[in-house]
Amino acid sequence: MDKIQYTPIGVIRSPFKSIEGMPIQSAAAKGVAGSVEIFEMFVDGLKDLEGFSHIILIYHFHRSRGYTLRVKPFLDDHLRGVFATRAPRRPNAAGISLVRLLRVEGSILRIEDVDILDGTPLLDIKPYVPAFDARKAVRTGWLSSRAGGLSAVRSDKRFNK
Amino acid sequence: MDKIQYTPIGVIRSPFKSIEGMPIQSAAAKGVAGSVEIFEMFVDGLKDLEGFSHIILIYHFHRSRGYTLRVKPFLDDHLRGVFATRAPRRPNAAGISLVRLLRVEGSILRIEDVDILDGTPLLDIKPYVPAFDARKAVRTGWLSSRAGGLSAVRSDKRFNK
Repeated sequence: MDKIQYTPIGVIRSPFKSIEGMPIQSAAAKGVAGSVEIFEMFVDGLKDLEGFSHIILIYHFHRSRGYTLRVKPFLDDHLRGVFATRAPRRPNAAGISLVRLLRVEGSILRIEDVDILDGTPLLDIKPYVPAFDARKAVRTGWLSSRAGGLSAVRSDKRFNK
Repeated sequence: MDKIQYTPIGVIRSPFKSIEGMPIQSAAAKGVAGSVEIFEMFVDGLKDLEGFSHIILIYHFHRSRGYTLRVKPFLDDHLRGVFATRAPRRPNAAGISLVRLLRVEGSILRIEDVDILDGTPLLDIKPYVPAFDARKAVRTGWLSSRAGGLSAVRSDKRFNK
């Protein structure tokens, strides 16, 4: 099938300058402040965005090289299928994160709950709408026994200010 | 900034052969059955996926051509910033949908709640995990006055079987 080419629309800024010590997902990055710099030619597309308290960022894991189809996630000792994980080394190294939008200042989005590496190229922004993006009573496979422990571990180690 | 190149990992199959008459979001596509054909070279990455009842598909709006930064969404009469909408004509024509995963049959994913055009190239699959992907008590901007009406209109017109 044809290759698909995207061009970054901006850059994500965060306190995380290296992969080590980063929170793994935005729910564990609660309160971490960051920003998005939208390139000038796309700024007109930000109209009406400030009405949304939460947005979904789609970005490229620019530090990820190559991939394997079985990975050992941060949270686990078993090899899992890469599509059953959120690992950055994947066939198409695209990431999604749900973040809180504090305000829009011209071409800058002030955001919170940032689990993204500084300098990450942004591909798209979607408004977060629970009717579209959220479901209750779901099964979460291998992650279900680990989800509780996960956020506790991370808030202890990294976010006890 | 550098361009980013992705290669489809599969194809999405749905009853929607043309854009007209399609549901706009998966919440309004409740019960609509479809499938995903994963290309052979990526099938090993599907291990453990079946444990998840819901998955997020990231795909390319392959029928979308060009974009404008202000768009008139299906649900509205006003021009909105494209990043405050889920419209397919956007600078990088990437779409995300939350769907129900019924089962995995080799290279085929049987899915439900499909709001995606038949033949759409799939770029990535993420397991849906509410701790990562869902938030309560959010503001949904211009969509907030329309969300209720929206699903009512669609279920009346399209899904009254």
